[in-house]
Amino acid sequence: MQEHLSISKATVDRLPRYYRCLRQLTDEGVEIASSEELGRRLAINPEQIRKDLAFFGQFGKKGVGYYVAELKESIGGILGLDQHWNVAIIGMGHLGAALANYQGIARLGFRLAAIFDANPVVIGTRVGERRVEDIAYLAEIIAERDIQIGVIAVPAAHAQGVADQLVAAGIRGIWNFAPVKLRVPPSIPFVSEDLSVGLSALSYYLTHTSAEDGELSDKNLTN
Amino acid sequence: MQEHLSISKATVDRLPRYYRCLRQLTDEGVEIASSEELGRRLAINPEQIRKDLAFFGQFGKKGVGYYVAELKESIGGILGLDQHWNVAIIGMGHLGAALANYQGIARLGFRLAAIFDANPVVIGTRVGERRVEDIAYLAEIIAERDIQIGVIAVPAAHAQGVADQLVAAGIRGIWNFAPVKLRVPPSIPFVSEDLSVGLSALSYYLTHTSAEDGELSDKNLTN
Repeated sequence: MQEHLSISKATVDRLPRYYRCLRQLTDEGVEIASSEELGRRLAINPEQIRKDLAFFGQFGKKGVGYYVAELKESIGGILGLDQHWNVAIIGMGHLGAALANYQGIARLGFRLAAIFDANPVVIGTRVGERRVEDIAYLAEIIAERDIQIGVIAVPAAHAQGVADQLVAAGIRGIWNFAPVKLRVPPSIPFVSEDLSVGLSALSYYLTHTSAEDGELSDKNLTN
Repeated sequence: MQEHLSISKATVDRLPRYYRCLRQLTDEGVEIASSEELGRRLAINPEQIRKDLAFFGQFGKKGVGYYVAELKESIGGILGLDQHWNVAIIGMGHLGAALANYQGIARLGFRLAAIFDANPVVIGTRVGERRVEDIAYLAEIIAERDIQIGVIAVPAAHAQGVADQLVAAGIRGIWNFAPVKLRVPPSIPFVSEDLSVGLSALSYYLTHTSAEDGELSDKNLTN
């Protein structure tokens, strides 16, 4: 049992949000931030923030706040963002194309190493600096280019099949955009995105705010 | 001060996840689920779940569990998903097109009422059942069709301008996909999606799981 295994999933879930917030603070030129300031921006209880961050070591100074650059660097390291993961996107429909053009992937240090599709019309077309490759060569290319992360952007009906192919090819983790519950071996971590969560939260705020009522202003969400 | 204002943002954030989980349970034919079962699926402490749900009333029976259909219906109502919001997407690049084709919007009861773009080449083209309309008519169409939610899918450089136009047009809420921090009046709730959160979480699990180590299997994420 290693130490990291005792970190709760809820804490791990919050780390990327801390990281993003610290990146924003860096962009704004803020050098020191208190847990109260972080709490206000993230709408997380400051006590919870202190508890979460204390778990990973000593990043702040009592009564002063957290050093933004240092904390950002440390959380980035904890998140493994210093490891330059190689990523493959499978499925070059609109969603796949949007992801291939999404600059956040590169900004986090991830490298788009391959794009796959099964459609002969799409195979060979250019997306940014890459050409779409035939999914028939998936296993070969994943091994050759040392690709660790597979991004599933195919229609729901094909998602499990692609996941199976990725697993067989030795992928280490999966980022899934298909609205299905994937079955993958327990040793392969995966993250499924579901846009309905953000849209539902917005619906909640619309339902419970009247146009004249600014009370919820501090509760605006960034997922 | 109305009652709903005392619900914490953290609780509101979890409601859409409860809703999605209950939808999955419904699809699987599960009729009753304990807070432990929900906790296992969502990786949320069962105690936290009981606390969150108790806030909204009595949905379960001690020692039996929650009635899935009833709880799903109630949370859907709390989230305002029974209100049939009209939605407009602004920006018909790959992301906008992916969102226009995203079935989750309709599944939640939202109605895609308009699609806007500024590019003359794109205006007039068909996306599903709709035609892309000229953003010059944004205000007019939003009023005419009673559109409450604007989805920003334009490049970052144009996002604030579009947000300003939406606000001037009387939009009630904004779902933002541009990687910028929007400034909108406090009376307009907005949700910003940031895919880097999911990708960072995946990076964390890859960093802290070895290929032989299945220990993190219960911690797979669905954001």
